[in-house]
Amino acid sequence: MSELPSYLASVAKTIDHMIDRYFVDKTGELNKASAHLLAAGGKRLRPAVVMLAADTVKPGSSDDILHAALALEVTHTFTLVHDDIMDDDSLRRGAPTVHTKWDMPTGILAGDVLYARAFEHLCMAQAKDDAKVRAVTMLAKACDEICAGQHMDMSFEHRTDVTEGEYLEMVKKKTGVLYAAAAGIGAILAGGNGVQVKALYNFGLSTGIAFQIQDDIIDLLTPPEKSGKDQASDLREGKQTLLMIRAREKGLDLKKYQRDLSPADIQAAIRELTDAGVIDEVKKTATDLVAESNRHLSVLAPSKERQLLMDIGEFFVTRSF
Amino acid sequence: MSELPSYLASVAKTIDHMIDRYFVDKTGELNKASAHLLAAGGKRLRPAVVMLAADTVKPGSSDDILHAALALEVTHTFTLVHDDIMDDDSLRRGAPTVHTKWDMPTGILAGDVLYARAFEHLCMAQAKDDAKVRAVTMLAKACDEICAGQHMDMSFEHRTDVTEGEYLEMVKKKTGVLYAAAAGIGAILAGGNGVQVKALYNFGLSTGIAFQIQDDIIDLLTPPEKSGKDQASDLREGKQTLLMIRAREKGLDLKKYQRDLSPADIQAAIRELTDAGVIDEVKKTATDLVAESNRHLSVLAPSKERQLLMDIGEFFVTRSF
Repeated sequence: MSELPSYLASVAKTIDHMIDRYFVDKTGELNKASAHLLAAGGKRLRPAVVMLAADTVKPGSSDDILHAALALEVTHTFTLVHDDIMDDDSLRRGAPTVHTKWDMPTGILAGDVLYARAFEHLCMAQAKDDAKVRAVTMLAKACDEICAGQHMDMSFEHRTDVTEGEYLEMVKKKTGVLYAAAAGIGAILAGGNGVQVKALYNFGLSTGIAFQIQDDIIDLLTPPEKSGKDQASDLREGKQTLLMIRAREKGLDLKKYQRDLSPADIQAAIRELTDAGVIDEVKKTATDLVAESNRHLSVLAPSKERQLLMDIGEFFVTRSF
Repeated sequence: MSELPSYLASVAKTIDHMIDRYFVDKTGELNKASAHLLAAGGKRLRPAVVMLAADTVKPGSSDDILHAALALEVTHTFTLVHDDIMDDDSLRRGAPTVHTKWDMPTGILAGDVLYARAFEHLCMAQAKDDAKVRAVTMLAKACDEICAGQHMDMSFEHRTDVTEGEYLEMVKKKTGVLYAAAAGIGAILAGGNGVQVKALYNFGLSTGIAFQIQDDIIDLLTPPEKSGKDQASDLREGKQTLLMIRAREKGLDLKKYQRDLSPADIQAAIRELTDAGVIDEVKKTATDLVAESNRHLSVLAPSKERQLLMDIGEFFVTRSF
């Protein structure tokens, strides 16, 4: 049986402790707003990828770069805080979003505080200075691309003709690049050579895209009592996910599901997509990406940590919430 | 006669070229939104401070760190783009604000893109890696404090009892810290020692606070045909500036000026503040800060660049728009 669950639990515990120390325990309203979503839970998957990438390159090195692992979680959280304002979402991880609990200006500022702290913590990692400069550059470029991805995602809302290529480009930027940076930064800070850094970066990129595709599948298939959020919200909002794009290509008309979806409607939509082979095909796209990510890792020497990275990829596309 | 005007003009030309190359010439709607305010002009004072600080520490070194000078301008611009959303201002530098010309989500993202690019450009400076790591940390801490300053500033809107100490703390964070980081980063990247970096950081801090106090005086005294913006907007909005706080301490009632201010009302308010000695006292606070900033510089060897820094401080508190 995989050691992944216990490994992830131990990373989450470490990161949660750091979040308490560096964010939750600070006083002042803006600090509270900045800590709010960070402290609301989460699987801490990006920190785990940072640490496993480092240990894959140099066993035991992850202890020195916990601040970099934290930096990736903080970066991810900053993007969520700002995305929630842009999408005007009121709930996230079962808690009110920052701009809902406080207000829009405080939401913008809380995200901006987290953005700064990500770079502060990245520089606090114990690593060579040249590696830290490369890591800062990689994180900054990732943030740049995430913004481009979010902008693409928003522009898709007004369109019904998004292509599969456009969707994958958007997901690569919005989700893939930060997993890529997580793995790449772990490798860089551990002193990895060019081949190692590239292999781990590409691993993160492919698994990150697969992660988002699985998220879309979960949105459709997982009942609210299991996922803790609305089922089939993408379908209701007419969102252009890979499922919807493939359905359109096959001539399926899903527009009829866009308004008040009853549980029976959701089941009908699932049946229609299943019968047309859409769900299986999209699942295959995700598992193909994970297989590709494993090929990237194959240039690295086998180790327990390399296996855990592969297990994370497997987990990304088999999880049901 | 001071060489400052021609020096500032040459810095602005250099930075404007870089802005064209790295921001304006990029395609795509989000890149256009990110470049919009950056390209709308500005005196490029923070880049000048970065470059002069570097040249004060090591003559000729500023050529190697132009990307760091650009990074400070980009950071300043990101804060303006987000501030304009928070304050819902529609005009800045005579042009529509980003969230007005595009929309609120694009404004948030454009600011976030600039935020990332600031760190990317900082790392592109030609300097030792340990210096770059320290510079990244200093810029990140500055961004962190700017957010705290903006949050304080917004919280003052609901209060009429802001103290002078609170006001100065807010201005230090909101404006002083970025000038401090500009001078500190220039010194760090040029290889300055602890004494030099501290002296230049503190110089930037004092002059930055003085800059903001002068901004408040300009808001009151400068007619719109000269400043290009509304006169006495702080008075109209009941904003707690040092002028207003001192006036309150002297028992002056300025609340009567808060609604529709005629040009005659503005003149009456100016007369009242002048007669009570408020304007002279506040001007003295600003010039005292510049004198203090010059004392910080006195530990450095005299040079043309050190003199230009002192001239910038002088310019900050004598400019009328």
